Amino acid sequence: MKKLTIGVIGAGRIGKVHAKTISKLVIPGVDVRIKWVVDPVVKMAEELAAALAIPKSGADYREVLADPEVDAVLVCSSTNTHSEISIAAAKAGKHVFCEKPVDLTIARVDAAIAAAKEAGVILQVGFNRRFDPDFRKIRTIVASGAIGVPHILKITSRDPNPPSPQYAAVSGGMFLDMTIHDFDMARYLIGSEVAEVFAAGAVLVDPEIGRAGDIDTALITLRFENGTIGVIDNSRKAVFGYDQRAEVLCSNGMAANSNHYHDTVVVSGAERIENDLPQNFFMDRYTLSFEVEIGEFVEAILGGKAPSCDGRDGRQALVIALAAKKSLVTGRPVKTAEVEA
Amino acid sequence: MKKLTIGVIGAGRIGKVHAKTISKLVIPGVDVRIKWVVDPVVKMAEELAAALAIPKSGADYREVLADPEVDAVLVCSSTNTHSEISIAAAKAGKHVFCEKPVDLTIARVDAAIAAAKEAGVILQVGFNRRFDPDFRKIRTIVASGAIGVPHILKITSRDPNPPSPQYAAVSGGMFLDMTIHDFDMARYLIGSEVAEVFAAGAVLVDPEIGRAGDIDTALITLRFENGTIGVIDNSRKAVFGYDQRAEVLCSNGMAANSNHYHDTVVVSGAERIENDLPQNFFMDRYTLSFEVEIGEFVEAILGGKAPSCDGRDGRQALVIALAAKKSLVTGRPVKTAEVEA
Amino acid sequence: MKKLTIGVIGAGRIGKVHAKTISKLVIPGVDVRIKWVVDPVVKMAEELAAALAIPKSGADYREVLADPEVDAVLVCSSTNTHSEISIAAAKAGKHVFCEKPVDLTIARVDAAIAAAKEAGVILQVGFNRRFDPDFRKIRTIVASGAIGVPHILKITSRDPNPPSPQYAAVSGGMFLDMTIHDFDMARYLIGSEVAEVFAAGAVLVDPEIGRAGDIDTALITLRFENGTIGVIDNSRKAVFGYDQRAEVLCSNGMAANSNHYHDTVVVSGAERIENDLPQNFFMDRYTLSFEVEIGEFVEAILGGKAPSCDGRDGRQALVIALAAKKSLVTGRPVKTAEVEA
Amino acid sequence: MKKLTIGVIGAGRIGKVHAKTISKLVIPGVDVRIKWVVDPVVKMAEELAAALAIPKSGADYREVLADPEVDAVLVCSSTNTHSEISIAAAKAGKHVFCEKPVDLTIARVDAAIAAAKEAGVILQVGFNRRFDPDFRKIRTIVASGAIGVPHILKITSRDPNPPSPQYAAVSGGMFLDMTIHDFDMARYLIGSEVAEVFAAGAVLVDPEIGRAGDIDTALITLRFENGTIGVIDNSRKAVFGYDQRAEVLCSNGMAANSNHYHDTVVVSGAERIENDLPQNFFMDRYTLSFEVEIGEFVEAILGGKAPSCDGRDGRQALVIALAAKKSLVTGRPVKTAEVEA
Repeated sequence: MKKLTIGVIGAGRIGKVHAKTISKLVIPGVDVRIKWVVDPVVKMAEELAAALAIPKSGADYREVLADPEVDAVLVCSSTNTHSEISIAAAKAGKHVFCEKPVDLTIARVDAAIAAAKEAGVILQVGFNRRFDPDFRKIRTIVASGAIGVPHILKITSRDPNPPSPQYAAVSGGMFLDMTIHDFDMARYLIGSEVAEVFAAGAVLVDPEIGRAGDIDTALITLRFENGTIGVIDNSRKAVFGYDQRAEVLCSNGMAANSNHYHDTVVVSGAERIENDLPQNFFMDRYTLSFEVEIGEFVEAILGGKAPSCDGRDGRQALVIALAAKKSLVTGRPVKTAEVEA
Repeated sequence: MKKLTIGVIGAGRIGKVHAKTISKLVIPGVDVRIKWVVDPVVKMAEELAAALAIPKSGADYREVLADPEVDAVLVCSSTNTHSEISIAAAKAGKHVFCEKPVDLTIARVDAAIAAAKEAGVILQVGFNRRFDPDFRKIRTIVASGAIGVPHILKITSRDPNPPSPQYAAVSGGMFLDMTIHDFDMARYLIGSEVAEVFAAGAVLVDPEIGRAGDIDTALITLRFENGTIGVIDNSRKAVFGYDQRAEVLCSNGMAANSNHYHDTVVVSGAERIENDLPQNFFMDRYTLSFEVEIGEFVEAILGGKAPSCDGRDGRQALVIALAAKKSLVTGRPVKTAEVEA
Repeated sequence: MKKLTIGVIGAGRIGKVHAKTISKLVIPGVDVRIKWVVDPVVKMAEELAAALAIPKSGADYREVLADPEVDAVLVCSSTNTHSEISIAAAKAGKHVFCEKPVDLTIARVDAAIAAAKEAGVILQVGFNRRFDPDFRKIRTIVASGAIGVPHILKITSRDPNPPSPQYAAVSGGMFLDMTIHDFDMARYLIGSEVAEVFAAGAVLVDPEIGRAGDIDTALITLRFENGTIGVIDNSRKAVFGYDQRAEVLCSNGMAANSNHYHDTVVVSGAERIENDLPQNFFMDRYTLSFEVEIGEFVEAILGGKAPSCDGRDGRQALVIALAAKKSLVTGRPVKTAEVEA
Repeated sequence: MKKLTIGVIGAGRIGKVHAKTISKLVIPGVDVRIKWVVDPVVKMAEELAAALAIPKSGADYREVLADPEVDAVLVCSSTNTHSEISIAAAKAGKHVFCEKPVDLTIARVDAAIAAAKEAGVILQVGFNRRFDPDFRKIRTIVASGAIGVPHILKITSRDPNPPSPQYAAVSGGMFLDMTIHDFDMARYLIGSEVAEVFAAGAVLVDPEIGRAGDIDTALITLRFENGTIGVIDNSRKAVFGYDQRAEVLCSNGMAANSNHYHDTVVVSGAERIENDLPQNFFMDRYTLSFEVEIGEFVEAILGGKAPSCDGRDGRQALVIALAAKKSLVTGRPVKTAEVEA
């Protein structure tokens, strides 16, 4: 029986999600297992190890990389360590699944891509929404040409609750932390690179976020190389829940999705007709996408083929985010070429 | 210019609706006008005449029938006079649009049909829902065979508020007054006659209705000659509004409609997502159907062709209603042949 | 650490579903594990044991019952063995989760209930739909009285494809095999016993089913002890997919659900607007309900409390099914008291 | 009986719509009638007069203004004559309903406003969408504060088919001809003035429109004085029909509408579930809004009160449109103050 041994680096929220997913994976003829989980907060690593019967835990990711039995690692550590660990893992010959964003600078993302290439290992980036059935279907329809060529893209992406202002400050700002998913989604759905960005931002949800130097509300206009124009609207707070929608108007039709709900029950009363609120948390809404994403990572390793969301995808989303940030500061449209230079 | 002169008999709720519809009719090359409106409550006739600039009003429908200029009459009087007036009108050579039900006995409906036939005039019956775009579309799809042959019919027909118990008593009962629309709809949608009826009735809305000898809630199972089975569910009170839906499951698909709303606005809040209540009143919900119905009556006269909803349709709905009533009393399924005998 | 050891009896479709669910269960402080899987077709038992690392497999359920370590069994064998195995398991002091129907005769269901009672073990019956979030929400709302008292119940339950005529013949017929879920749902949603049943059945999907002595299409009218009236509509074939809906009209409102879809994407084209078909298979549609059901069984054992769906629920659904069958044969409404006698 | 005499100037598409609406108006105690219809193409005026029994027709609007019996005029002539006729009508003491846009220059709109003010007559502007039940409800909810303060506005406004390139050239361009409705809607829904505009335009539908110097696809970002940010997306061609939606995300909820359909029928087949296309034409989609709009004009005159959509509303929409045009040319955000200067 084939064997695939994985190390999980980072035992926080997303590390737990991925570790559980791998524990439940059933692939005929392959024994996939997690051997290591490490976290600087070693207690978290130990707890996750206990819960999922993972044999080894610790604080230092270098122990994982030094283990010759380990085939691949999931980099679920804090953002500022993503590229460093990914590079070290590649150099150690391990396949890498790296959470988003790979890094906050283009140079370091490029270094990670180069390291993976040189080592001949897979580098997959955690833009999980690409693996959601809704967005994948929209992309498939648009890419097929069945409804013509894309004219207007609209992405709505709103969180149910704002992060703490402290988090806002250290995360690199809304565009690098939250909108980066939408920048990737924009490229994914349209199948073309973004040439120019204009960002209109505002602080409407929490003044503390503004004082911390970030924004909480934005409209970002994108102009793609293939002529499509698009807009992303973001808010850190949609009181009714996690608001995740996309719409692509094409020359011969439109594809759009709607939010997901826990149940479909409609209650009709004398005053109103009401239904359930949308799923409120990204781990509810995107449960399936996390499973498919990890499944594809494992398949890519086993099949020796490229992942559908790779280092370059991580890089290009960052480029758009940096252009959006520059547009916000300068108050004018910014070409992505400007931030590449 | 061709001329078509109409008399309106009965100036109550439905008489007003039809009179206004005719006043607004614009048919190129034809001068359609109402010359008469009469009502036993002559004040009501006079008021309607004044509002719509109708030249003549009065109390006695025989004046209308005696006017040689009148080509057609709308019989919108109280139910117990429908057949008598329709027969007299036919004998006077006037085309007849008769509100539902034509009568509460089969014999008298047959007499009205015979009178119209003998006189060579049109007899159209006011089952307006046939002219609603939703139900007409379902019927068209089913009749086309595009989704195969019908297996199961479901009609939901619920009023927003019960009538007074007094009305319940004199109207002939729920089946003859309210469900008769649904019995016609059943025949219309399936395109086959009903062979057997089983009615389960209950008094759940208002005990006074029960004391007056009627029911206010019912499930009526229908077995059609073509093998389709169907169910009508009725309530005299759906607190959220007028509930009017139909669904036909066929061997190769299903056609179904939903309720109509004043607006499409959805309000999403922290507690719930809500939308508008359905249109609450039959004159809102079926506005368009009344216009199309009268338009087709006028066209049938002008074109000399048979109306799409005629005396026989009025008769067959009555047969089903009488069978349902008998089923309710006997507690067993009743063949329509039993009430014909 | 507490320990709960389970034996799975029957390694067919539903046995596999439940075994997988238990394998994935994570209950803090409790070690839940499957020790046995048995099936007369021993190869199926062995395969399932291998896939889920279950230590012991075999052909004979008596081996499981003889194992003192086993706390509970899941009876997922063929229908005709359900009551026999459940009784034997109870006598062996094992808690029992028994798939539906418990048996095709009331006497044998009563015997199973009595055996469990005498042995002081839990007997839960596998009406999984009670654990679906949609139906549970409808029931909760109705039971709360928030929308008044129930007047009309409507359950739509249609399979995407008919079974083989052979299966139709041996399964006890559509009412005992398929509609029994809906009879349980009816009791669950309304919270009252069914007093009378009228069944209108037809063979419209597949003449072979008729020749095998069964029907494939039905409308079943129910009259509940609390006065509610209800209708179940069944078809063995809804070409668009698994059609599972319920609607309860109450004196002060209505609660209704709709079907579930794989994705929410709407594609608008020049000819039509279209969306996904409903989930097509009961294991997709009811995935979550199977998990919750098994979770509640385990919790009931651990907490020493009664399950929310017990032997009596299994019995009462059977009573309604037998009354429906009798109504179909006699062509008249049948009181449930008649089949109890 | 009070009397209100109206002259219709312009017998084209929109002139006909308004004339018919007035013909059907029934206001108790008031005799509202059209005395004149004029059009440079006198044949069109004559035909409309004949169809609606309007006593006088002609080519020259000055005849209408000279008639002392005329109380009010509807200016439905070609755009380039709107302000001139409105000013002349005001000077003649007639109330004015002027179709949008009032003019393509701010100075001339200001002149029309001043003329109406000086003469003490009403000047209402034909932004009919304000009178649509959907948009009025969204505005009412937002203005009530019930869902907090607005954060993000999204307006989707797409035509089913592009105009001829010739029309595109003479109409003042898409922003002045089509988007001007949306600019008004933006002000209406948010209740605040627009401070800054960024327009991203493209020619994606028809290259001929580009050659004529116009665009056919656009995303326009708006920044309001109250801090709200908004986006309008326009296309000259949505193949599935007239796409008219708005969504306002507020601090405590969201209000949004959807498109309108001719019927609600859903057809579920083995391949797909499909429903009707949206109403395809602005006169279908906005029928009711035209009626309400004219009704409010008549009421404003009779009640001596200000209309809910006046000359200043016409002016402000123009200001935004001109800023959008400038943004398109310069490729940068433009403050509305710039085009006022």
